[in-house]
Amino acid sequence: MRVVLGISYRGEAYCGFQIQDDYPTVQGELEKAIEVIANHPVKTTCAGRTDKGVHAFLQVIHFDTEANRDEAHWVRGVNAHLPSDIRVRWAQVVTDDFHARFSAYSRSYVYVLNTSEEDLFIEPYAWSVRQIDLDAMRKAGEYILGEHDFHAFQSKYCQAEHAIRRVTELRFETRGHYIYCHITANAFVHHMVRKLIATLVAIGQGKLQPKVMAELLAKPCRASVPGQAPAKGLFLKAIGYDEKFGIPSKLGSQLLGELDV
Amino acid sequence: MRVVLGISYRGEAYCGFQIQDDYPTVQGELEKAIEVIANHPVKTTCAGRTDKGVHAFLQVIHFDTEANRDEAHWVRGVNAHLPSDIRVRWAQVVTDDFHARFSAYSRSYVYVLNTSEEDLFIEPYAWSVRQIDLDAMRKAGEYILGEHDFHAFQSKYCQAEHAIRRVTELRFETRGHYIYCHITANAFVHHMVRKLIATLVAIGQGKLQPKVMAELLAKPCRASVPGQAPAKGLFLKAIGYDEKFGIPSKLGSQLLGELDV
Repeated sequence: MRVVLGISYRGEAYCGFQIQDDYPTVQGELEKAIEVIANHPVKTTCAGRTDKGVHAFLQVIHFDTEANRDEAHWVRGVNAHLPSDIRVRWAQVVTDDFHARFSAYSRSYVYVLNTSEEDLFIEPYAWSVRQIDLDAMRKAGEYILGEHDFHAFQSKYCQAEHAIRRVTELRFETRGHYIYCHITANAFVHHMVRKLIATLVAIGQGKLQPKVMAELLAKPCRASVPGQAPAKGLFLKAIGYDEKFGIPSKLGSQLLGELDV
Repeated sequence: MRVVLGISYRGEAYCGFQIQDDYPTVQGELEKAIEVIANHPVKTTCAGRTDKGVHAFLQVIHFDTEANRDEAHWVRGVNAHLPSDIRVRWAQVVTDDFHARFSAYSRSYVYVLNTSEEDLFIEPYAWSVRQIDLDAMRKAGEYILGEHDFHAFQSKYCQAEHAIRRVTELRFETRGHYIYCHITANAFVHHMVRKLIATLVAIGQGKLQPKVMAELLAKPCRASVPGQAPAKGLFLKAIGYDEKFGIPSKLGSQLLGELDV
Protein backbone atom coordinates (compact mmCIF):
# COMPACT_ATOMS: atom_id res chain seq x y z
CA MET A 1 0.00 0.00 0.00
CA ARG A 2 1.18 3.56 -0.71
CA VAL A 3 1.17 6.01 2.19
CA VAL A 4 1.54 9.80 1.90
CA LEU A 5 2.69 11.93 4.81
CA GLY A 6 2.49 15.71 5.24
CA ILE A 7 5.61 16.83 7.11
CA SER A 8 6.80 20.05 8.78
CA TYR A 9 10.39 20.65 9.79
CA ARG A 10 12.91 23.19 10.92
CA GLY A 11 15.94 22.91 8.69
CA GLU A 12 18.78 24.29 10.78
CA ALA A 13 19.98 20.98 12.22
CA TYR A 14 19.97 19.10 8.90
CA CYS A 15 22.16 18.95 5.80
CA GLY A 16 19.06 19.26 3.67
CA PHE A 17 16.19 16.88 2.96
CA GLN A 18 18.01 14.28 0.88
CA ILE A 19 19.55 11.33 2.72
CA GLN A 20 23.35 11.23 2.99
CA ASP A 21 25.55 8.65 4.64
CA ASP A 22 27.47 10.67 7.18
CA TYR A 23 25.28 13.69 7.84
CA PRO A 24 21.95 14.26 9.56
CA THR A 25 19.17 14.74 7.02
CA VAL A 26 15.40 15.08 7.20
CA GLN A 27 14.91 12.05 4.96
CA GLY A 28 17.31 9.99 7.06
CA GLU A 29 15.37 10.78 10.25
CA LEU A 30 12.05 10.10 8.54
CA GLU A 31 13.06 6.73 7.15
CA LYS A 32 14.47 5.59 10.50
CA ALA A 33 11.22 6.52 12.25
CA ILE A 34 8.92 5.08 9.57
CA GLU A 35 10.85 1.80 9.56
CA VAL A 36 10.18 1.35 13.27
CA ILE A 37 6.42 1.56 12.63
CA ALA A 38 6.44 -0.33 9.31
CA ASN A 39 8.79 -2.98 10.69
CA HIS A 40 10.61 -3.27 7.35
CA PRO A 41 13.05 -1.11 5.32
CA VAL A 42 11.38 1.93 3.73
CA LYS A 43 12.41 4.29 0.93
CA THR A 44 10.71 7.68 0.83
CA THR A 45 10.20 10.08 -2.08
CA CYS A 46 9.55 13.79 -1.51
CA ALA A 47 7.76 16.50 -3.49
CA GLY A 48 10.67 18.94 -3.42
CA ARG A 49 14.13 18.49 -1.96
CA THR A 50 15.06 21.33 0.34
CA ASP A 51 18.63 22.50 0.98
CA LYS A 52 20.62 22.58 4.17
CA GLY A 53 18.94 24.97 6.62
CA VAL A 54 15.71 25.42 4.63
CA HIS A 55 12.46 24.87 6.57
CA ALA A 56 9.14 23.35 5.56
CA PHE A 57 5.65 24.24 6.69
CA LEU A 58 4.60 21.44 4.36
CA GLN A 59 6.67 18.81 2.63
CA VAL A 60 4.89 15.80 1.08
CA ILE A 61 6.47 12.35 0.97
CA HIS A 62 5.28 8.90 -0.04
CA PHE A 63 6.48 5.38 0.64
CA ASP A 64 5.29 1.83 -0.01
CA THR A 65 4.66 -0.51 2.86
CA GLU A 66 3.31 -3.95 3.64
CA ALA A 67 2.30 -2.80 7.10
CA ASN A 68 -1.42 -2.34 7.59
CA ARG A 69 -1.74 0.63 9.95
CA ASP A 70 -4.50 3.18 10.15
CA GLU A 71 -3.69 6.77 9.22
CA ALA A 72 -3.68 8.13 12.79
CA HIS A 73 -1.21 5.42 13.72
CA TRP A 74 1.23 6.57 11.03
CA VAL A 75 1.06 10.10 12.45
CA ARG A 76 1.39 9.28 16.15
CA GLY A 77 3.70 6.30 15.74
CA VAL A 78 6.18 8.00 13.42
CA ASN A 79 6.16 11.20 15.49
CA ALA A 80 7.06 9.18 18.58
CA HIS A 81 10.31 8.21 16.84
CA LEU A 82 11.18 11.55 15.20
CA PRO A 83 13.26 14.37 16.67
CA SER A 84 11.10 17.28 17.84
CA ASP A 85 12.07 19.51 14.87
CA ILE A 86 10.40 17.16 12.37
CA ARG A 87 6.66 16.44 12.68
CA VAL A 88 4.19 14.38 10.70
CA ARG A 89 1.04 16.51 10.38
CA TRP A 90 -1.20 14.05 8.53
CA ALA A 91 -1.12 10.65 6.83
CA GLN A 92 -3.19 9.34 3.96
CA VAL A 93 -3.37 6.03 2.10
CA VAL A 94 -3.40 6.64 -1.68
CA THR A 95 -3.64 4.69 -4.89
CA ASP A 96 -0.40 3.50 -6.47
CA ASP A 97 -0.59 6.05 -9.29
CA PHE A 98 0.18 8.85 -6.81
CA HIS A 99 3.82 9.93 -6.70
CA ALA A 100 4.95 12.68 -4.29
CA ARG A 101 7.34 14.10 -6.87
CA PHE A 102 5.96 13.28 -10.32
CA SER A 103 2.30 13.92 -9.49
CA ALA A 104 3.11 17.40 -8.17
CA TYR A 105 2.36 20.15 -10.68
CA SER A 106 3.64 22.98 -8.47
CA ARG A 107 5.75 23.85 -5.48
CA SER A 108 5.23 27.00 -3.40
CA TYR A 109 7.74 28.66 -1.13
CA VAL A 110 7.62 31.71 1.10
CA TYR A 111 10.73 33.74 1.88
CA VAL A 112 10.62 35.94 4.98
CA LEU A 113 12.41 39.31 5.01
CA ASN A 114 12.70 41.36 8.20
CA THR A 115 13.04 45.12 7.67
CA SER A 116 13.24 46.19 11.33
CA GLU A 117 16.60 46.36 13.01
CA GLU A 118 14.83 46.16 16.37
CA ASP A 119 13.29 42.72 15.84
CA LEU A 120 15.89 40.20 16.95
CA PHE A 121 13.62 37.29 17.61
CA ILE A 122 12.68 36.46 14.04
CA GLU A 123 16.37 35.91 13.26
CA PRO A 124 16.25 32.09 12.91
CA TYR A 125 13.50 32.41 10.28
CA ALA A 126 14.20 35.56 8.28
CA TRP A 127 16.80 37.54 6.41
CA SER A 128 17.22 40.99 7.94
CA VAL A 129 17.51 43.60 5.22
CA ARG A 130 17.51 47.39 5.36
CA GLN A 131 16.16 50.14 3.15
CA ILE A 132 14.04 48.12 0.80
CA ASP A 133 12.09 49.79 -2.01
CA LEU A 134 9.23 47.36 -2.41
CA ASP A 135 8.00 49.04 -5.61
CA ALA A 136 11.31 48.31 -7.31
CA MET A 137 11.11 44.69 -6.16
CA ARG A 138 7.54 44.39 -7.44
CA LYS A 139 8.58 45.81 -10.81
CA ALA A 140 11.44 43.30 -11.09
CA GLY A 141 9.16 40.52 -9.89
CA GLU A 142 6.86 41.00 -12.86
CA TYR A 143 9.63 39.87 -15.21
CA ILE A 144 9.89 36.58 -13.33
CA LEU A 145 6.30 35.49 -13.94
CA GLY A 146 5.87 33.05 -16.82
CA GLU A 147 8.17 30.54 -18.47
CA HIS A 148 11.86 31.44 -18.60
CA ASP A 149 15.31 29.92 -18.68
CA PHE A 150 16.46 30.36 -15.06
CA HIS A 151 20.02 29.27 -15.82
CA ALA A 152 21.41 32.45 -14.25
CA PHE A 153 19.73 31.50 -10.96
CA GLN A 154 20.86 27.88 -11.01
CA SER A 155 23.55 26.44 -8.75
CA LYS A 156 26.53 25.23 -10.73
CA TYR A 157 26.05 21.89 -8.96
CA CYS A 158 22.46 21.53 -10.17
CA GLN A 159 21.90 18.28 -12.04
CA ALA A 160 18.77 19.36 -13.94
CA GLU A 161 18.98 18.93 -17.73
CA HIS A 162 17.80 22.48 -18.34
CA ALA A 163 16.65 25.45 -16.30
CA ILE A 164 13.39 26.28 -18.04
CA ARG A 165 10.71 26.65 -15.38
CA ARG A 166 7.28 28.29 -15.25
CA VAL A 167 6.66 30.71 -12.36
CA THR A 168 2.93 31.11 -11.74
CA GLU A 169 3.02 33.30 -8.61
CA LEU A 170 5.37 35.97 -7.35
CA ARG A 171 3.74 38.06 -4.67
CA PHE A 172 5.02 40.34 -1.94
CA GLU A 173 2.95 40.55 1.21
CA THR A 174 3.85 43.07 3.92
CA ARG A 175 2.88 42.47 7.53
CA GLY A 176 4.26 44.90 10.06
CA HIS A 177 7.96 45.03 9.32
CA TYR A 178 8.02 41.65 7.57
CA ILE A 179 7.92 41.13 3.82
CA TYR A 180 6.74 37.67 2.79
CA CYS A 181 7.83 36.79 -0.74
CA HIS A 182 5.52 34.09 -2.05
CA ILE A 183 6.69 32.19 -5.11
CA THR A 184 5.13 29.24 -6.93
CA ALA A 185 6.49 27.39 -9.97
CA ASN A 186 5.98 24.06 -11.67
CA ALA A 187 9.44 23.23 -10.29
CA PHE A 188 12.65 24.99 -9.24
CA VAL A 189 16.26 24.44 -10.16
CA HIS A 190 18.79 24.20 -7.34
CA HIS A 191 19.16 27.50 -5.40
CA MET A 192 16.69 29.24 -7.72
CA VAL A 193 14.49 30.77 -5.00
CA ARG A 194 17.40 32.01 -2.93
CA LYS A 195 19.21 33.49 -5.94
CA LEU A 196 16.01 35.20 -7.13
CA ILE A 197 15.45 36.62 -3.64
CA ALA A 198 19.04 37.89 -3.39
CA THR A 199 18.60 39.61 -6.76
CA LEU A 200 15.24 41.09 -5.79
CA VAL A 201 16.71 42.44 -2.53
CA ALA A 202 19.67 43.97 -4.39
CA ILE A 203 17.10 45.65 -6.65
CA GLY A 204 15.06 46.75 -3.62
CA GLN A 205 18.18 48.32 -2.16
CA GLY A 206 18.96 50.18 -5.37
CA LYS A 207 22.16 48.23 -6.05
CA LEU A 208 20.66 46.91 -9.30
CA GLN A 209 17.97 48.28 -11.60
CA PRO A 210 14.70 46.33 -11.94
CA LYS A 211 15.38 45.74 -15.64
CA VAL A 212 18.47 43.70 -14.68
CA MET A 213 16.02 40.93 -13.80
CA ALA A 214 14.71 40.93 -17.37
CA GLU A 215 18.26 40.88 -18.71
CA LEU A 216 19.27 37.92 -16.48
CA LEU A 217 16.29 35.97 -17.81
CA ALA A 218 16.81 36.93 -21.47
CA LYS A 219 20.55 36.33 -21.44
CA PRO A 220 21.46 34.12 -18.49
CA CYS A 221 24.74 34.96 -16.74
CA ARG A 222 25.45 33.34 -13.39
CA ALA A 223 28.25 35.74 -12.55
CA SER A 224 25.84 38.70 -12.63
CA VAL A 225 23.59 37.29 -9.87
CA PRO A 226 24.44 38.82 -6.48
CA GLY A 227 24.73 35.58 -4.47
CA GLN A 228 21.92 33.82 -2.72
CA ALA A 229 19.68 34.68 0.21
CA PRO A 230 20.32 32.78 3.48
CA ALA A 231 18.60 29.39 3.77
CA LYS A 232 17.04 30.25 7.14
CA GLY A 233 14.42 32.61 5.64
CA LEU A 234 13.07 30.03 3.17
CA PHE A 235 10.04 27.80 3.80
CA LEU A 236 8.50 25.19 1.53
CA LYS A 237 4.79 25.83 2.12
CA ALA A 238 2.55 24.08 -0.42
CA ILE A 239 2.55 21.38 -3.08
CA GLY A 240 0.03 21.30 -5.91
CA TYR A 241 -1.57 17.94 -6.79
CA ASP A 242 -4.53 17.03 -8.94
CA GLU A 243 -7.68 17.15 -6.82
CA LYS A 244 -8.42 13.51 -7.64
CA PHE A 245 -5.72 12.45 -5.15
CA GLY A 246 -7.39 14.37 -2.29
CA ILE A 247 -4.04 15.50 -0.84
CA PRO A 248 -4.16 18.53 1.51
CA SER A 249 -2.09 21.05 -0.42
CA LYS A 250 -0.95 23.32 2.40
CA LEU A 251 -0.77 23.90 6.12
CA GLY A 252 -0.76 27.14 8.05
CA SER A 253 1.71 27.67 10.82
CA GLN A 254 1.79 29.96 13.77
CA LEU A 255 5.06 31.78 13.42
CA LEU A 256 5.22 35.52 13.31
CA GLY A 257 3.14 38.12 15.05
CA GLU A 258 2.84 40.62 17.80
CA LEU A 259 3.66 39.82 21.40
CA ASP A 260 2.54 42.75 23.51
CA VAL A 261 4.51 42.20 26.69
CA MET B 1 27.36 62.15 32.66
CA ARG B 2 25.25 59.06 33.30
CA VAL B 3 23.68 57.35 30.29
CA VAL B 4 20.92 54.74 30.41
CA LEU B 5 20.34 52.30 27.53
CA GLY B 6 17.34 50.06 26.85
CA ILE B 7 18.62 46.82 25.37
CA SER B 8 17.06 43.77 23.67
CA TYR B 9 18.94 40.54 23.12
CA ARG B 10 18.64 36.92 22.17
CA GLY B 11 20.43 34.88 24.79
CA GLU B 12 21.38 31.67 23.02
CA ALA B 13 24.87 32.71 21.95
CA TYR B 14 25.89 34.11 25.33
CA CYS B 15 26.96 32.70 28.69
CA GLY B 16 24.53 35.07 30.38
CA PHE B 17 24.56 38.82 30.85
CA GLN B 18 27.43 39.18 33.29
CA ILE B 19 30.90 39.71 31.87
CA GLN B 20 33.36 36.78 32.09
CA ASP B 21 36.94 36.60 30.90
CA ASP B 22 36.85 33.65 28.54
CA TYR B 23 33.23 33.42 27.40
CA PRO B 24 30.96 35.55 25.23
CA THR B 25 28.56 37.59 27.37
CA VAL B 26 26.01 40.29 26.67
CA GLN B 27 27.78 42.71 28.99
CA GLY B 28 31.12 41.97 27.35
CA GLU B 29 29.72 42.78 23.90
CA LEU B 30 27.99 45.91 25.20
CA GLU B 31 31.06 47.33 26.91
CA LYS B 32 33.26 46.72 23.85
CA ALA B 33 30.76 48.55 21.63
CA ILE B 34 30.12 51.43 24.06
CA GLU B 35 33.86 51.97 24.52
CA VAL B 36 34.28 52.54 20.78
CA ILE B 37 31.72 55.34 20.92
CA ALA B 38 32.79 56.76 24.33
CA ASN B 39 36.47 56.48 23.43
CA HIS B 40 37.38 55.47 26.99
CA PRO B 41 36.94 52.33 29.18
CA VAL B 42 33.35 51.86 30.35
CA LYS B 43 31.79 49.76 33.12
CA THR B 44 28.08 48.99 32.79
CA THR B 45 25.51 48.07 35.45
CA CYS B 46 22.30 46.23 34.58
CA ALA B 47 18.83 46.05 36.14
CA GLY B 48 18.73 42.26 36.30
CA ARG B 49 21.40 39.75 35.35
CA THR B 50 20.04 37.10 33.03
CA ASP B 51 21.40 33.55 32.79
CA LYS B 52 22.97 31.74 29.88
CA GLY B 53 20.39 31.38 27.12
CA VAL B 54 17.81 33.76 28.62
CA HIS B 55 16.50 36.50 26.32
CA ALA B 56 15.51 40.11 26.96
CA PHE B 57 12.83 42.21 25.33
CA LEU B 58 14.07 44.92 27.66
CA GLN B 59 17.15 45.06 29.80
CA VAL B 60 18.20 48.41 31.28
CA ILE B 61 21.85 49.35 31.81
CA HIS B 62 23.67 52.50 32.86
CA PHE B 63 27.24 53.72 32.56
CA ASP B 64 29.18 56.89 33.25
CA THR B 65 31.00 58.66 30.48
CA GLU B 66 32.95 61.79 29.73
CA ALA B 67 31.88 61.64 26.11
CA ASN B 68 29.33 64.21 25.09
CA ARG B 69 27.09 62.45 22.55
CA ASP B 70 23.45 62.99 21.82
CA GLU B 71 21.02 60.19 22.64
CA ALA B 72 20.42 59.09 19.03
CA HIS B 73 24.18 58.81 18.60
CA TRP B 74 24.43 56.36 21.52
CA VAL B 75 21.75 54.21 19.88
CA ARG B 76 23.07 54.21 16.32
CA GLY B 77 26.75 54.31 17.22
CA VAL B 78 26.66 51.47 19.72
CA ASN B 79 24.42 49.35 17.49
CA ALA B 80 26.94 49.71 14.67
CA HIS B 81 29.48 47.90 16.86
CA LEU B 82 27.19 45.26 18.40
CA PRO B 83 26.45 41.76 17.06
CA SER B 84 23.01 41.56 15.46
CA ASP B 85 21.50 39.60 18.37
CA ILE B 86 21.99 42.54 20.77
CA ARG B 87 20.29 45.88 20.02
CA VAL B 88 20.13 49.22 21.76
CA ARG B 89 16.50 50.35 21.56
CA TRP B 90 16.79 53.77 23.24
CA ALA B 91 19.26 55.94 25.13
CA GLN B 92 18.64 58.56 27.75
CA VAL B 93 20.87 60.87 29.77
CA VAL B 94 19.88 60.77 33.48
CA THR B 95 20.84 62.38 36.74
CA ASP B 96 23.57 60.70 38.80
CA ASP B 97 21.10 59.45 41.41
CA PHE B 98 19.70 56.94 38.88
CA HIS B 99 21.13 53.43 39.19
CA ALA B 100 19.98 50.67 36.80
CA ARG B 101 20.00 48.08 39.58
CA PHE B 102 19.35 49.90 42.86
CA SER B 103 16.72 52.31 41.50
CA ALA B 104 14.66 49.40 40.09
CA TYR B 105 11.75 48.45 42.31
CA SER B 106 10.59 45.54 40.13
CA ARG B 107 11.62 43.15 37.38
CA SER B 108 9.10 41.46 35.08
CA TYR B 109 9.63 38.31 33.07
CA VAL B 110 7.48 36.35 30.66
CA TYR B 111 7.93 32.63 30.18
CA VAL B 112 6.52 31.13 26.97
CA LEU B 113 5.01 27.62 26.96
CA ASN B 114 4.00 25.91 23.70
CA THR B 115 1.24 23.32 24.05
CA SER B 116 0.98 22.27 20.38
CA GLU B 117 3.12 19.43 19.14
CA GLU B 118 2.63 20.74 15.60
CA ASP B 119 4.28 24.12 16.13
CA LEU B 120 7.99 23.59 15.53
CA PHE B 121 8.95 27.13 14.76
CA ILE B 122 8.56 28.60 18.23
CA GLU B 123 11.14 26.13 19.52
CA PRO B 124 14.01 28.62 20.08
CA TYR B 125 11.74 30.73 22.31
CA ALA B 126 9.46 28.37 24.19
CA TRP B 127 9.27 25.22 26.27
CA SER B 128 7.04 22.64 24.59
CA VAL B 129 4.83 20.95 27.17
CA ARG B 130 1.89 18.58 26.79
CA GLN B 131 -1.37 18.08 28.61
CA ILE B 132 -1.40 21.13 30.79
CA ASP B 133 -4.26 21.78 33.22
CA LEU B 134 -4.15 25.55 33.41
CA ASP B 135 -6.64 25.67 36.30
CA ALA B 136 -4.27 23.66 38.46
CA MET B 137 -1.41 26.00 37.51
CA ARG B 138 -3.53 29.06 38.33
CA LYS B 139 -4.45 27.58 41.71
CA ALA B 140 -0.78 26.94 42.52
CA GLY B 141 0.14 30.37 41.20
CA GLU B 142 -2.02 32.07 43.80
CA TYR B 143 0.25 30.78 46.56
CA ILE B 144 3.22 32.51 44.93
CA LEU B 145 1.79 36.02 45.13
CA GLY B 146 3.05 38.08 48.06
CA GLU B 147 6.20 37.95 50.16
CA HIS B 148 7.75 34.52 50.71
CA ASP B 149 11.04 32.79 51.35
CA PHE B 150 11.87 31.39 47.90
CA HIS B 151 14.82 29.34 49.18
CA ALA B 152 13.38 26.16 47.61
CA PHE B 153 13.53 27.87 44.19
CA GLN B 154 17.03 29.25 44.62
CA SER B 155 20.10 27.90 42.82
CA LYS B 156 22.62 26.46 45.26
CA TYR B 157 25.15 28.81 43.64
CA CYS B 158 23.06 31.90 44.38
CA GLN B 159 25.01 34.50 46.35
CA ALA B 160 22.01 36.39 47.76
CA GLU B 161 21.98 36.73 51.56
CA HIS B 162 18.42 35.48 51.79
CA ALA B 163 15.64 34.37 49.45
CA ILE B 164 12.78 36.51 50.70
CA ARG B 165 11.17 38.20 47.69
CA ARG B 166 7.81 39.83 46.99
CA VAL B 167 5.93 38.62 43.91
CA THR B 168 3.42 41.22 42.76
CA GLU B 169 2.17 39.60 39.55
CA LEU B 170 1.71 36.00 38.46
CA ARG B 171 -0.59 35.80 35.47
CA PHE B 172 -1.22 33.19 32.79
CA GLU B 173 -2.26 34.46 29.39
CA THR B 174 -3.30 32.00 26.69
CA ARG B 175 -2.99 32.91 23.03
CA GLY B 176 -3.70 30.14 20.57
CA HIS B 177 -1.63 27.23 21.76
CA TYR B 178 0.80 29.41 23.70
CA ILE B 179 0.68 30.06 27.42
CA TYR B 180 2.51 33.22 28.49
CA CYS B 181 3.41 33.14 32.18
CA HIS B 182 3.92 36.72 33.35
CA ILE B 183 5.74 37.19 36.64
CA THR B 184 6.83 40.36 38.41
CA ALA B 185 8.72 40.66 41.72
CA ASN B 186 10.78 43.25 43.54
CA ALA B 187 13.72 40.99 42.67
CA PHE B 188 14.47 37.33 41.95
CA VAL B 189 17.00 34.91 43.38
CA HIS B 190 19.12 32.91 40.95
CA HIS B 191 17.02 30.44 38.88
CA MET B 192 13.83 31.43 40.73
CA VAL B 193 11.64 32.01 37.67
CA ARG B 194 12.73 28.82 35.91
CA LYS B 195 12.29 26.69 39.05
CA LEU B 196 8.86 28.20 39.70
CA ILE B 197 7.84 27.51 36.09
CA ALA B 198 9.10 23.90 36.24
CA THR B 199 7.05 23.39 39.42
CA LEU B 200 3.96 25.03 37.92
CA VAL B 201 4.24 22.84 34.80
CA ALA B 202 4.62 19.68 36.94
CA ILE B 203 1.44 20.79 38.74
CA GLY B 204 -0.27 21.49 35.42
CA GLN B 205 0.62 17.99 34.26
CA GLY B 206 -0.77 16.41 37.44
CA LYS B 207 2.62 15.20 38.65
CA LEU B 208 2.30 17.39 41.74
CA GLN B 209 -0.72 18.79 43.58
CA PRO B 210 -1.24 22.58 43.61
CA LYS B 211 -0.83 22.64 47.39
CA VAL B 212 2.78 21.46 46.99
CA MET B 213 3.53 25.04 45.96
CA ALA B 214 2.26 26.30 49.32
CA GLU B 215 4.32 23.67 51.12
CA LEU B 216 7.52 24.58 49.22
CA LEU B 217 7.05 28.20 50.25
CA ALA B 218 6.14 27.46 53.89
CA LYS B 219 8.92 24.89 54.40
CA PRO B 220 11.58 25.36 51.71
CA CYS B 221 13.15 22.17 50.39
CA ARG B 222 15.30 22.42 47.26
CA ALA B 223 15.24 18.68 46.66
CA SER B 224 11.45 18.71 46.23
CA VAL B 225 11.52 21.15 43.30
CA PRO B 226 11.29 19.33 39.94
CA GLY B 227 14.25 20.99 38.21
CA GLN B 228 14.12 24.17 36.18
CA ALA B 229 12.45 25.19 32.95
CA PRO B 230 14.75 25.65 29.92
CA ALA B 231 16.37 29.08 29.60
CA LYS B 232 15.18 29.53 26.01
CA GLY B 233 11.54 30.22 27.03
CA LEU B 234 12.41 33.03 29.42
CA PHE B 235 12.37 36.74 28.54
CA LEU B 236 13.16 39.72 30.75
CA LYS B 237 10.47 42.17 29.64
CA ALA B 238 10.12 45.18 31.96
CA ILE B 239 11.89 47.03 34.76
CA GLY B 240 10.02 49.23 37.22
CA TYR B 241 11.55 52.62 38.07
CA ASP B 242 10.17 55.64 39.86
CA GLU B 243 8.42 57.88 37.35
CA LYS B 244 10.68 60.79 38.27
CA PHE B 245 13.48 59.17 36.22
CA GLY B 246 11.33 59.08 33.07
CA ILE B 247 12.71 55.69 32.01
CA PRO B 248 10.57 53.73 29.49
CA SER B 249 9.64 50.67 31.52
CA LYS B 250 8.93 48.17 28.75
CA LEU B 251 9.04 47.40 25.06
CA GLY B 252 6.78 45.22 22.98
CA SER B 253 8.25 42.80 20.52
CA GLN B 254 6.88 41.15 17.46
CA LEU B 255 7.47 37.50 18.12
CA LEU B 256 4.63 35.03 18.05
CA GLY B 257 1.55 34.95 15.88
CA GLU B 258 -0.23 33.46 12.97
CA LEU B 259 1.36 33.10 9.55
CA ASP B 260 -1.31 32.04 7.12
CA VAL B 261 0.71 30.60 4.29
